[in-house]
Amino acid sequence: MNASVELKTGERIDDLQRNGYYIIQNPEKFCFGMDAVLLSHFVRLGKKQTILDMGTGTGVLPILLAARPGDNRFEALEIQEESADMARRSVKLNSLEHRIRITDGSLTEASSLFGKHVFDAVVTNPPYMNDRHGLKNPDMPKAIARHEILCTLEDVIRESSLVLKPKKSLFMVHRPFRLAEIFRILSKYRLEPKRMRFVYPYLDREPNMVLLEAVLDGNPMIKTEPPLIVYESPGKYTKQLLDLYHTGE
Amino acid sequence: MNASVELKTGERIDDLQRNGYYIIQNPEKFCFGMDAVLLSHFVRLGKKQTILDMGTGTGVLPILLAARPGDNRFEALEIQEESADMARRSVKLNSLEHRIRITDGSLTEASSLFGKHVFDAVVTNPPYMNDRHGLKNPDMPKAIARHEILCTLEDVIRESSLVLKPKKSLFMVHRPFRLAEIFRILSKYRLEPKRMRFVYPYLDREPNMVLLEAVLDGNPMIKTEPPLIVYESPGKYTKQLLDLYHTGE
Repeated sequence: MNASVELKTGERIDDLQRNGYYIIQNPEKFCFGMDAVLLSHFVRLGKKQTILDMGTGTGVLPILLAARPGDNRFEALEIQEESADMARRSVKLNSLEHRIRITDGSLTEASSLFGKHVFDAVVTNPPYMNDRHGLKNPDMPKAIARHEILCTLEDVIRESSLVLKPKKSLFMVHRPFRLAEIFRILSKYRLEPKRMRFVYPYLDREPNMVLLEAVLDGNPMIKTEPPLIVYESPGKYTKQLLDLYHTGE
Repeated sequence: MNASVELKTGERIDDLQRNGYYIIQNPEKFCFGMDAVLLSHFVRLGKKQTILDMGTGTGVLPILLAARPGDNRFEALEIQEESADMARRSVKLNSLEHRIRITDGSLTEASSLFGKHVFDAVVTNPPYMNDRHGLKNPDMPKAIARHEILCTLEDVIRESSLVLKPKKSLFMVHRPFRLAEIFRILSKYRLEPKRMRFVYPYLDREPNMVLLEAVLDGNPMIKTEPPLIVYESPGKYTKQLLDLYHTGE
């Protein structure tokens, strides 16, 4: 760990339990969830590729993915300055500056910032909610990370289709209740859903996440993976989930 | 059981274990599978409604659904004369002539046969495969039931959208690998996917069926139900599946 990195008020350093990497978070603002971790396991990467994370928050996805073999490089875009700053310090903390670059900016302009058809993969854990009902502080970091305030699902998908090289993949985690809409927008931008996995909190519950891979100009045939069940009983993870966390890939 | 119904060579009578109903099948031609049974459980029906089964085969779906309460009426369309004849005799066998009518015809012309926006629900267990690779006998009943030889997925969905009343549902079982295409075509015909359930043969396997409800002019929000796992170990059904079979609904 690079000891020269400073923490600001309210921040703490969490062990990512992956490759000796750490992350700076502020629990009063926003902490990453299981969504990002499961997405990092779902993503398939080659070697020496360049990957874009759209809306990286505190940078958890590129750091988790950098822990995997393949010597890949990551560009990560974040509109909230405070999060981008934390992400940048976390990158430094893990001495990953040569592999991860954090850029301040809106994912809605990803293709003008990075150019067209330049990435081997796009990853994203975008805001899930498309309504603003009950949002008391729409300028709060949590609200911006969870609700489509500064970007929409269509922005995410459109920009992905523009920055991806042909036949390359967008990897996304989202809420199952928006699946039909997600498929519709993917289709509009020539991103073909190719691989999907539902995450069910318990075996007898509805899924609360869906992991999705879509390929630019891919052929229409989708593979749904075995179910991912998180808990065996309250507080007790399934063996399946523990294996995933422990093997790292 | 109506004892005056005749069997033809190769046919047998199977107990549906539902309401004392039976079905005539010819194992050399085509026998219904778990698909139809699971679909019959997935379907939600009101009372005194009129339901169309598109491609009824030997009539298993309307007979299973007629076993449920609600005093509903069924129209069932079948293009293969031999199957339609068996279905008609099965209806008679169960004395269901007042509630189920079998019509010879192609589902591609359902809306011209029955009229537009007349049904409270459509159910269908259509052919799953859209290629003809390796089909040695494309005129065989099994091939016609399994491959899109005499109708396509788009025919099924288009005709459903035409015969359904507004805000009413199409219930379908299909293969998960075609899900993106199914969603695309549903969307084209203003049928919004609203409810979905994946059937996984084992907990650690990919799903081999998806049960789907789509609503004509419905709102874009889909509910994915808990996973349905069929086998605990080879030959041993899960409690979940046995409960489904035994409760009948």
